[in-house]
Amino acid sequence: MPVASPTVLRQLSPATTARLLGTWHAGGPAYIALADALRAAVLSGTLAPHTRLPSERELAATLNVSRTTTSGAYARLRELGFAVSRVGSGTVTTLPQRAIEPGPLHRPAGGDAPLSADPLRGGTHAGAPAAVGHLDLWQATPPAPPELHGAFARALDGLPAYLDSGGYEPYGLTPLREAIAARYRERGVPTTAGEILVTTGAQQAIALLARTHLRPGERAVVESPTYFHAMEAMRDAGGRVVGVPAGPLDVDQLASTVRRARPRLVYLVPDYQNPTGFVLSAEERAAVREIADRHGVTVVGDETLVELGLSDERTPPPFAGDGTSPHVVSVGSASKAFWGGLRVGWVRAHPQVIAQLARARQSVDIATAVLEQLAVTELLGRRAEVMAGRRQMLRERRDVLVGRLQEAFPWDVPVPQGGLFCWVDLGLPVAQAFAAAAAAEGVRVGGGPMFTPDNAGATSRVRLTFTRSPAELSDAVPRLVRAWGRVAGRQRPAGSRA
Amino acid sequence: MPVASPTVLRQLSPATTARLLGTWHAGGPAYIALADALRAAVLSGTLAPHTRLPSERELAATLNVSRTTTSGAYARLRELGFAVSRVGSGTVTTLPQRAIEPGPLHRPAGGDAPLSADPLRGGTHAGAPAAVGHLDLWQATPPAPPELHGAFARALDGLPAYLDSGGYEPYGLTPLREAIAARYRERGVPTTAGEILVTTGAQQAIALLARTHLRPGERAVVESPTYFHAMEAMRDAGGRVVGVPAGPLDVDQLASTVRRARPRLVYLVPDYQNPTGFVLSAEERAAVREIADRHGVTVVGDETLVELGLSDERTPPPFAGDGTSPHVVSVGSASKAFWGGLRVGWVRAHPQVIAQLARARQSVDIATAVLEQLAVTELLGRRAEVMAGRRQMLRERRDVLVGRLQEAFPWDVPVPQGGLFCWVDLGLPVAQAFAAAAAAEGVRVGGGPMFTPDNAGATSRVRLTFTRSPAELSDAVPRLVRAWGRVAGRQRPAGSRA
Repeated sequence: MPVASPTVLRQLSPATTARLLGTWHAGGPAYIALADALRAAVLSGTLAPHTRLPSERELAATLNVSRTTTSGAYARLRELGFAVSRVGSGTVTTLPQRAIEPGPLHRPAGGDAPLSADPLRGGTHAGAPAAVGHLDLWQATPPAPPELHGAFARALDGLPAYLDSGGYEPYGLTPLREAIAARYRERGVPTTAGEILVTTGAQQAIALLARTHLRPGERAVVESPTYFHAMEAMRDAGGRVVGVPAGPLDVDQLASTVRRARPRLVYLVPDYQNPTGFVLSAEERAAVREIADRHGVTVVGDETLVELGLSDERTPPPFAGDGTSPHVVSVGSASKAFWGGLRVGWVRAHPQVIAQLARARQSVDIATAVLEQLAVTELLGRRAEVMAGRRQMLRERRDVLVGRLQEAFPWDVPVPQGGLFCWVDLGLPVAQAFAAAAAAEGVRVGGGPMFTPDNAGATSRVRLTFTRSPAELSDAVPRLVRAWGRVAGRQRPAGSRA
Repeated sequence: MPVASPTVLRQLSPATTARLLGTWHAGGPAYIALADALRAAVLSGTLAPHTRLPSERELAATLNVSRTTTSGAYARLRELGFAVSRVGSGTVTTLPQRAIEPGPLHRPAGGDAPLSADPLRGGTHAGAPAAVGHLDLWQATPPAPPELHGAFARALDGLPAYLDSGGYEPYGLTPLREAIAARYRERGVPTTAGEILVTTGAQQAIALLARTHLRPGERAVVESPTYFHAMEAMRDAGGRVVGVPAGPLDVDQLASTVRRARPRLVYLVPDYQNPTGFVLSAEERAAVREIADRHGVTVVGDETLVELGLSDERTPPPFAGDGTSPHVVSVGSASKAFWGGLRVGWVRAHPQVIAQLARARQSVDIATAVLEQLAVTELLGRRAEVMAGRRQMLRERRDVLVGRLQEAFPWDVPVPQGGLFCWVDLGLPVAQAFAAAAAAEGVRVGGGPMFTPDNAGATSRVRLTFTRSPAELSDAVPRLVRAWGRVAGRQRPAGSRA
């Protein structure tokens, strides 16, 4: 198949590139460090494929390095499969093609261990170091609970009642909508099924809220740092993302930002915030709802992590309060409480908002899969027992990671009270260099800046997830120690100029 | 819960409203006919909720009716739950809220017949006629095949291999990608798994292609008429949709439109085209690929219906030809071949395009559900036997609908050689009035204009799907006869001015 000229979707200025790279030179030959930093940015998603990089000359001038360094770095990126260059097109980021040679017929699923089909996790492409992304402390994806298989089996018993229908229920199956509403009522929020829309995961819920509430150029306010893909969904909708300090959330600044910036949407993670781990107090939640009602702005509380309390098994108070504000929207998900391979989420909102979202989803994916919905209905019916096991597993994994990190590093490693992440303070503004060095050691981590709206804050923080097995977590730590050794020796403390 | 002021997402000018209504006055009191036409437009999706209608005065002037008529029509719309009016906001379209009273706990799925949770299909809300949308000749959603349950059971046997993973595979599970690639090879297109992206249905594939290829204001070329939600996805991405006559496709005009309009995307349905039923010949396909390569424009062939030949069981030639053009993209789906309740589709494209789509989907829904993918892998392995039964069922339903229509009406009812639709020529430019009258008789049909980019063509056509049971199809026809009686008696033949 002939290779087309590289598609160019955007252009990066030298200044933006420099900001995105942060403190990239963490020792060794400069061209390798620069290439590694750019590769890490592509792998972590902060630098999109099909982006035209600055010319070698421009970038050299901006970074104050020699042209030989930028030229060598781009050549290395090309070798690794992360860039292509063409006369007239400059150097354009890309993702490596993996060498997949399928057999003549498909292999039966059951006999086939799950392969990573995701080059973002590293792969087998020629030229790239085999270790890239081998250990994943980036994706927050716990394994499935033991109850999942049985839930699907019972769901399959219930499936025949649906098979004569067309299978499209744009609002979701009634039993699931009722089970979700019942869970809100159990938490103290009067809710009917008419206030629930089932979505294909919480990410879709956020994307639908963004596209129905934001027109190009309109503002959305988020915590800074926050969930990376939520900001992406808002930008995809044309929105301008504005941050308010979080970890803990500055509610007064939220109020003044809403007054000043007049956003159409506010997005918060009230429980075990992603990535900081903070939980909004009942008073802060009430203050946020008051802001929503006073300014008539839709405030979305992403409750994806609400069931994942690890120190205190009480579930945090519902973001919706008494459920009466038409401006307060809650998003929920089966992905973290149950399993990421289940693609079911939901929105709780005023029925008119629900109708608006349901219509928007018609051109997105029409409806959510029927059997998935039946399985989640089953799991919600056994929520208490499933969650007890999950919390136990996550508590062990958190303790392994926190313990190993505290032994091995001088970092400030706060112990998260719930959720899936450690938000580690490195004490030096080297998050991006460290993330690049970690990737070179075979461990993917989330550098702090990518969680901030301008991709420039949280430069001394990294997010480490503890969802993989204790063995994998333990295996990651010595690699992180090596990466840290390459980075820390060259740096001055935070606050001084590098 | 207090009702918020109606959210207004767009404003309809009097002229656009008039064009959208077409020939709306099909007898009876004018205010009822006008309200029915507006309600049918909301139900069919041509008039979105949260649209501010023109003022009563403006609309009366444009339609050349009395203010009493528009005022009465809006009042009736409000009564039926399809509009709200507020001082300062005017009259805004909305969807009726259904009266759902969930029990204290969710009911087990198996004991609960599938309820329509979709107000688009009509519901039980107070004030609306119970018959609205009761019989669905709009959605093209066949029931599931008998093999589906067994496929899920076998998929469940294979699931444990995946449960220790996080469940996110942004490109799709390898066995499914390989099975899809194998099917392309079987059809004569050399294909590897690296050229396949699994999506959450074909609709998501189209939406991803639109958002990765179109920037605001850029053009997309489609057949006119074409699949409604494809145009919606392109507009959602900011694209301007341009039509080329279809049924059959005018390939010369496609070439000149591409040359002139310089679109970034062309979208075609090559097999049993939606809604006209035409199949592109091998020569036309080759000409389309030549246009793609000559102009470097991405041409998407939506092969959702390719397995649904009803008269000739040979599958039409693959849209991708020999599979070598980097500008030719194929979209496929399990929804029509197998079941709509399975939300699995795919894209076949150059690996760089696949990587670009996979990245875009991260902010859309992250990944497709694992068990769904295993079930589709199973079904693809038994494709021949499943499709034989499906074709038999659809052939019978097509013959029932075509036969009843030919007995009952003076229309030209072409016999579709495949697919799921009859594209009926009414002989009079009354498609919208007829669709409104049919909705009032409890049958949802697709008025021709909604399948055209300007919502103004195909005024003498309606699309009737034959996916529901023979009993339902037979029940629909006398209702359509009554609707036709209300419409046809008042009209002059096509071509004369109404």
